[in-house]
Amino acid sequence: MGYRMYDLIEKKKRKDPLSEEEIRWMIREYTEGRLPDYQMSALMMAVWFNGMTDEETTYLTMAMARSGDMLDLSAIPGTKVDKHSTGGIGDKTTLVVAPILAALGVPTAKMSGRGLGFTGGTVDKLESIPGLRSEFSEEEFLRILKDVGFVDAAQTKALAPADKLLYALRDVTATVDSIPLIASSIMSKKLAAGADRIVLDVKCGSGAFMQDRESAVALARQMIRIGDLAGRKVVAVISDMNQPLGHAVGNLVEVLEALEVLSGGGEERLRTLCMEIAVEMLQLSDHARQDREEAKAAVEEVIRSGAAMERCMAFYRAAGGDTEYLEKAFRNIKEYPVTMDGDETLEAVTVPTVPIMAETMTPVYAKEDGFLFACDNAEVGMASVMLGAGRAKKEDVIDPLAGILILKKLGDPVRKGEPIAIFFTKDESVLPAAKERFLAAYTISEKKPEETSVILEILR
Amino acid sequence: MGYRMYDLIEKKKRKDPLSEEEIRWMIREYTEGRLPDYQMSALMMAVWFNGMTDEETTYLTMAMARSGDMLDLSAIPGTKVDKHSTGGIGDKTTLVVAPILAALGVPTAKMSGRGLGFTGGTVDKLESIPGLRSEFSEEEFLRILKDVGFVDAAQTKALAPADKLLYALRDVTATVDSIPLIASSIMSKKLAAGADRIVLDVKCGSGAFMQDRESAVALARQMIRIGDLAGRKVVAVISDMNQPLGHAVGNLVEVLEALEVLSGGGEERLRTLCMEIAVEMLQLSDHARQDREEAKAAVEEVIRSGAAMERCMAFYRAAGGDTEYLEKAFRNIKEYPVTMDGDETLEAVTVPTVPIMAETMTPVYAKEDGFLFACDNAEVGMASVMLGAGRAKKEDVIDPLAGILILKKLGDPVRKGEPIAIFFTKDESVLPAAKERFLAAYTISEKKPEETSVILEILR
Repeated sequence: MGYRMYDLIEKKKRKDPLSEEEIRWMIREYTEGRLPDYQMSALMMAVWFNGMTDEETTYLTMAMARSGDMLDLSAIPGTKVDKHSTGGIGDKTTLVVAPILAALGVPTAKMSGRGLGFTGGTVDKLESIPGLRSEFSEEEFLRILKDVGFVDAAQTKALAPADKLLYALRDVTATVDSIPLIASSIMSKKLAAGADRIVLDVKCGSGAFMQDRESAVALARQMIRIGDLAGRKVVAVISDMNQPLGHAVGNLVEVLEALEVLSGGGEERLRTLCMEIAVEMLQLSDHARQDREEAKAAVEEVIRSGAAMERCMAFYRAAGGDTEYLEKAFRNIKEYPVTMDGDETLEAVTVPTVPIMAETMTPVYAKEDGFLFACDNAEVGMASVMLGAGRAKKEDVIDPLAGILILKKLGDPVRKGEPIAIFFTKDESVLPAAKERFLAAYTISEKKPEETSVILEILR
Repeated sequence: MGYRMYDLIEKKKRKDPLSEEEIRWMIREYTEGRLPDYQMSALMMAVWFNGMTDEETTYLTMAMARSGDMLDLSAIPGTKVDKHSTGGIGDKTTLVVAPILAALGVPTAKMSGRGLGFTGGTVDKLESIPGLRSEFSEEEFLRILKDVGFVDAAQTKALAPADKLLYALRDVTATVDSIPLIASSIMSKKLAAGADRIVLDVKCGSGAFMQDRESAVALARQMIRIGDLAGRKVVAVISDMNQPLGHAVGNLVEVLEALEVLSGGGEERLRTLCMEIAVEMLQLSDHARQDREEAKAAVEEVIRSGAAMERCMAFYRAAGGDTEYLEKAFRNIKEYPVTMDGDETLEAVTVPTVPIMAETMTPVYAKEDGFLFACDNAEVGMASVMLGAGRAKKEDVIDPLAGILILKKLGDPVRKGEPIAIFFTKDESVLPAAKERFLAAYTISEKKPEETSVILEILR
């Protein structure tokens, strides 16, 4: 069936919905290089203005999911539950949740991305473990999934290639911020990755794509509707991203923080979110406990027993990671003293880190007294990129040891001269600008901010 | 000054107006091939949705006008008055009006286009005269203007190249139908062509770009405002295009009809419009007569005296046209008999044409009795394209002798079997489909339609 792209643009411009056949044709032609970018970008802009119906959004999702390889997980028995985060600062939940689910007998096959801009990518975090590979053949992928009970791999180029092309075009034509387009982009990758049921962690706040709760909920609802129409059960957790999640922002530093949660500790908000997502995933699985309390107890038990930690290390080992190095680093986390700024009479504080990172520690001091009132979280992400923990451009190389340890959370009182964060970087030249950026990201006020819960809402 | 196209798209998307510098930068970068089409088409679609302010539209017009050569008419003394038609079926007003103005001592330097799709182009009509060239060096152009008093030339590639690039892009991305973009496209060419004052003939109806009076008036007002801001006086005549203008649709056939008007005859609506535009142009010139009646009398006088006809032939001759051929053809217009269809008892009618065209005559007969009630004029244009009088694609070659002679105007009574038009074509194979298309364009009704005036409104 042949169409003319001109007619499809005209239709969308007039707010007439495109048919399934039209969308399928368009995505196929575009993926195969037969539609020029200038027509597709005009259509994307028309979508930005006129939106898409749920049906159109689902057709687009399915067409993009089918534009490349569809992962076949049928060799793995049982319902496959996937999770996806819309991205944020310090988001290491996948590193915690997947081993928990594996320990509970719920197979999780996850495709993750690399970070670009202010948000980090799970693959970059994983690859901070020496020797660890994130790219597997389909055979390896399925073998690890079977042996370990979970696998977390880099998205292959063959997964939803239409989405990759379209996203790259939207990125340079100011058409990224469209809820149906974001929703179909995310869901196309999830469907291509073979998940039966999906828990979405939709981040909301200054360090997330969705800045306010209203649009986060709208995006979540859109993805749930796509799931409905595509026959996939989707649950969405709306979570706060107005400050980094946990203490660590970076790569190895985040892996270590994930191990801390898996060993029963960890920062409270981070732990709360990880537990909640694990419980939601468990409830969607074949192993569903009748009630939430029972599910929660099961999740806590695999942490307490060390089973989740054991699955985590088993995966890192299966992926070629030097778990001896990692375990040694984790065991060697020690409290290092940090002096106060200026006022010699103030007592020194200590921060926990590993020897190899302690060598590159630089404290960042509060410039006034008060409460940490607000955080422009994207700026915290950009400061970590400056330190070498992320990529400003695709070609940038990440320093696995670079990052930030956030010592204070919103609502904490701070004193002038007290360290509020520790920077880790090998490149001292970036420190002044990164510090300035980081400090400018935080508002210190005499007023204590209202407490907000890390989980804002759960949509089922 | 450097900008990022991304930011300009984002601004337009949010309905923030672009600055003069931003628009100038964008047009310069695009013309010089440094901005990708996919960003420009996204911006054009954002303009389609959000419009542009009068200031933005004027900045765009000026930037496009200045993107190539600006014609310098300062060597020609006095105020230069230009005219422009937004295009229609059978529109030969330029061929009539320019010689009239020249005879009145008002220099007219006109840049015209070639036809594409259902509307004809003045240049194609001129080039139906054997030997006539439409492309001149600047020197020739100015010499002809000086010697003859007017010149009508094909737009050179160097005239507003930004407009050409942008129009070609809009044409394939469904962003043509935007009033600020149409207005700036037209006005950029007029400004680059050096006119001081401009009479716009804004066509309105089924054979025009603007289908209804409301949008024709909106387009006219937009161009008048651009003129105001760019320091050019603009008058707009809103004229009816719900049926072909005059009797002739084609190329040589239209040149002959123009000569008919210049010799004092011609179809009434065509003559009315030509006189009106000539009067408006005269009133804008340095030779302005105090009152309209006086101006009208002056126009009529140069027709009566033959001075306008003489200027017309002088230009054709100066452009290399075989005026002997043309004059002979014009003198040889004779009444050729056409039989009625089917009913042998009906009297034959005669139609005026020239021997060379009479050879390829084919009558088109009414299929029922009634009044010609309505006309889908674009379809009449397409029928003439099928006969060889126009181009469906840029590469198509025009047959200068192909065309249509419309025998009946809206409101005329017709009888079944009576010829309502004469087709001229060398390609008999296209006749059945062209006839069908032509007949389907007309609605015949028992009811007589309301009479409409050819001039709907004049905006000053």
